Amino acid sequence: MRETDFIGGFAKGLKVIEAFDEAKPRLTISDVSKETGLDRATARRCLLTLAELGYAAYDGKFFQLTPKILRLGHAYLSATPLPRLVQPYLDQLSDKVGQSASASVLDGTEIVYVARAAQKRVMSINLMPGSRLPAYCASMGRVLLAALPEAEARAILEASDRRANTPFTKTDPDVLMEEFARVRRQGFAVIDQELEIGLCSIALPLENARGRVVAALNIGAPAAHAAAGEMVERYLPAMREVQAALRQVLA
Amino acid sequence: MRETDFIGGFAKGLKVIEAFDEAKPRLTISDVSKETGLDRATARRCLLTLAELGYAAYDGKFFQLTPKILRLGHAYLSATPLPRLVQPYLDQLSDKVGQSASASVLDGTEIVYVARAAQKRVMSINLMPGSRLPAYCASMGRVLLAALPEAEARAILEASDRRANTPFTKTDPDVLMEEFARVRRQGFAVIDQELEIGLCSIALPLENARGRVVAALNIGAPAAHAAAGEMVERYLPAMREVQAALRQVLA
Repeated sequence: MRETDFIGGFAKGLKVIEAFDEAKPRLTISDVSKETGLDRATARRCLLTLAELGYAAYDGKFFQLTPKILRLGHAYLSATPLPRLVQPYLDQLSDKVGQSASASVLDGTEIVYVARAAQKRVMSINLMPGSRLPAYCASMGRVLLAALPEAEARAILEASDRRANTPFTKTDPDVLMEEFARVRRQGFAVIDQELEIGLCSIALPLENARGRVVAALNIGAPAAHAAAGEMVERYLPAMREVQAALRQVLA
Repeated sequence: MRETDFIGGFAKGLKVIEAFDEAKPRLTISDVSKETGLDRATARRCLLTLAELGYAAYDGKFFQLTPKILRLGHAYLSATPLPRLVQPYLDQLSDKVGQSASASVLDGTEIVYVARAAQKRVMSINLMPGSRLPAYCASMGRVLLAALPEAEARAILEASDRRANTPFTKTDPDVLMEEFARVRRQGFAVIDQELEIGLCSIALPLENARGRVVAALNIGAPAAHAAAGEMVERYLPAMREVQAALRQVLA
């Protein structure tokens, strides 16, 4: 790519959008400058452009994003066949086992939910398409990382902010790499309260017709409903059926 | 706003992202140029910038968005208190009445779902946060349009692509303006299969503590479960309770 093919203003603007999040829903020009590393004048122009286009609201001091910004993420969700193809299988699976079923893909060090069939909420956070979780401590993340070349998986681990969310969270890269090897051997990953106390989950890879892993499928359940040890026996057979059916469907 | 405060490359880039959708998930440079009205060279630079930053994948001919693009929409969903505040009420309401409950806001001529508690799917489309529907023929859209000054509501109607989705869809601006007046008088809107045959819904406005309408709340149900005429009696009381509770919660 030649440098002249790169639109710096566009790249900076996208960075400014990503500066807003749950902890920082309303930002001043200085906040955005600090958050993004862009100089004040550039941050200001990006924010004013967002406001002019209706993607942000400005009260003279604070900027905040408007629902128009959802058009950008929605462009992916509606344009990508994966969520649409997977959703009916998740609905059936979730009904059958009485627990939430989800599909996700990898984006950097995180997994991104692309489809979900929710039963009663068991997690403290509300997951929906677009939601993100750290890959290293999520069952779908383990499956997706296990599908990568080892050097790549390790690089992602090194780049991850590996916190011990609970006393059970595995954070050591070597331990996690061994875990990935096990996931590859057995074909699925089980998480026992590594993300949140009281939550277990099981995940397996979704492959396309050519055998490429294109997403992960999981079932999450309260540890009180199904201890981690019971998840394989209880949920894996139904998940394997979905995996087999989707292998035909995912081109 | 001075012209020098506007970053043209950023604005054009956002337009390029919005060019992708369900009907056009994979686009060439020419496609994007046609879709956006941008010249080929600009479309190309925007697309290459997206690819360079990992927001799009490029196979040498076609571009398609990657899950990284979901960060942009997610910035809104996680940064805005509304979805988080409303979700637990939707969950309770949906469980109580056994139907899907949703909250949405207005964006131009469309409503955008910001939170949803789904029961069994009854619509042909899968709604989730970020999903959009035309406002003129959706119960939440009627409520949100009814809350606007009349001239503004009429301008949005005129700008809307008012199709008769079903034989029951009201498309005439005068008829719709009368409908809005009725919605204001009675405090809720009922839709009888105007969006899709077999689907009825009822919506009411969610106001903040200062009485400003900040979103709409709805329950959608198969016409076979609850005819439009029965929705008021069946669902309105529980919805009124949520409305009252949220008036305190929405600052």
